[in-house]
Amino acid sequence: MPERLGTVAIIGVGLIGGSIGMALRARGEAGRIVGIGRDPARLEEAQRLGAIDAATTDAARGVAEADVVVVCTPVDRISADVIHAAHAAGRDTLLTDAGSTKRAIVEAAEGDDATRSKFVAAHPIAGSERSGVAHARPDLFEGRACILTPTVRTPPDRLDRARGFWSAVGCRVFELDPATHDIHLARTSHLPHAMAAALASLVGPDLVPLAAGAYRDASRVAGADPALWAPIFLANRDALLDALDALAGSLSEFRAALERGDEPALRAWWEAARQNRFAFDAQNGPGGVASADAGG
Amino acid sequence: MPERLGTVAIIGVGLIGGSIGMALRARGEAGRIVGIGRDPARLEEAQRLGAIDAATTDAARGVAEADVVVVCTPVDRISADVIHAAHAAGRDTLLTDAGSTKRAIVEAAEGDDATRSKFVAAHPIAGSERSGVAHARPDLFEGRACILTPTVRTPPDRLDRARGFWSAVGCRVFELDPATHDIHLARTSHLPHAMAAALASLVGPDLVPLAAGAYRDASRVAGADPALWAPIFLANRDALLDALDALAGSLSEFRAALERGDEPALRAWWEAARQNRFAFDAQNGPGGVASADAGG
Repeated sequence: MPERLGTVAIIGVGLIGGSIGMALRARGEAGRIVGIGRDPARLEEAQRLGAIDAATTDAARGVAEADVVVVCTPVDRISADVIHAAHAAGRDTLLTDAGSTKRAIVEAAEGDDATRSKFVAAHPIAGSERSGVAHARPDLFEGRACILTPTVRTPPDRLDRARGFWSAVGCRVFELDPATHDIHLARTSHLPHAMAAALASLVGPDLVPLAAGAYRDASRVAGADPALWAPIFLANRDALLDALDALAGSLSEFRAALERGDEPALRAWWEAARQNRFAFDAQNGPGGVASADAGG
Repeated sequence: MPERLGTVAIIGVGLIGGSIGMALRARGEAGRIVGIGRDPARLEEAQRLGAIDAATTDAARGVAEADVVVVCTPVDRISADVIHAAHAAGRDTLLTDAGSTKRAIVEAAEGDDATRSKFVAAHPIAGSERSGVAHARPDLFEGRACILTPTVRTPPDRLDRARGFWSAVGCRVFELDPATHDIHLARTSHLPHAMAAALASLVGPDLVPLAAGAYRDASRVAGADPALWAPIFLANRDALLDALDALAGSLSEFRAALERGDEPALRAWWEAARQNRFAFDAQNGPGGVASADAGG
């Protein structure tokens, strides 16, 4: 059913926003896709790459004509952008976002009546260590999880439409409460990002010839943009501090076994972790996330 | 110049030993390749897969006819296997190994006169989280670093021949003293392995749907065999304990900045790590280690 989403406005046309536009176009799911941003040159690039049909730097105008507005700006700007869009949007508009943390955004959005009546918070779990529309791809969300974080205050009709929107870009849609989302993502995404940078901080250029695949993969997302990631860490501070404590606990267990030369304990510790990794492989398979270049 | 290595005996024909055999055959560098192991079924598989020309479970006999013997058994067996091979080998044989740690192996080998006169310790930095000859490939070592760790007691003619041998399988050959090798590899390989398992230990099957590319890559080598890795950690205990301390220091810095909500400090910490990662990318490039499935 083509054009069932009507006009979609994408605020922030970078890797995520651009990939949403490309996915909707490739799948014929939207009537028209309007990109909204502050930098005309970047909007022009997005249009040239086929991520959007039209562009404007006037958010209020871009939003006014949209049936769906999806906010894909950095995490520390999402709340303000969502609330601003809610006030410029028509009564029937669906508002959603793509931020990597959810609790603070949901709290801010629900504190504003105009926003609460239109907004469903979302997190499509896909990305890359590379940012910008130049790295956007129509298949970025194909088969990837998108977590919606509705609350009792979320309008049911918007929740339905949000499920439809995120399915339309290719996601498998799940639901979690905002706080649980943030606690889980601290472990599955924010912690591995911090670990990647911590590892990279220990391997200077002189050690590079001695680094191979384990380092390459473990440090990959250290190449991500700190302007995007520092706000994510701060928006999820408490859960990430807990995840760091859990990591320290696991590494302490390893360290203690190593220090006392306890091979059975090292092997048992490793084997438990290995089984978790096998569970990931089993759920994702060779054609799943394992083949996508995703940093989410 | 075909067959310039003469007869090569490979003790332990798994991922590494099998890939050495395949590389030598593919490049026409050896006259004959004899696989030595304890399990006839695995030797037969290695022969069927084209990793070796002939096989024997009799190490002394297999070694006696060899011009080069390369020991590719797990780290905790290498010293004994090298010393045993040295006593069975002819006077002109070159002995080398492929162990991931070097100091303890070199000390053991140099404590035995017959071994010291023939042995050059080596570490080809390549691998995979998968073990066994079924995953061996002729290009595993192509363009990868191999670190030789000679000492003042290493015979210069064997060192020359070891350089030639490891070049013949496709490696770029470097030299380091054994202790420096172990200190560096603790950071570039053993630490990332421990970190991968620590991360995986925190992400149980219930969290798998919320894990994407950052987790996938950061935890990949947690799938490796603990029977291989526990001995590596133990053989490099002191250097790995130091690397764990350095990691804890870097994570503490991150944690403190996070706790006090210090975005500039988070960004500065990340940016320094990111520059290290970019140095890795610059040295390896899209055709380098970044495209190989290597866990070494």
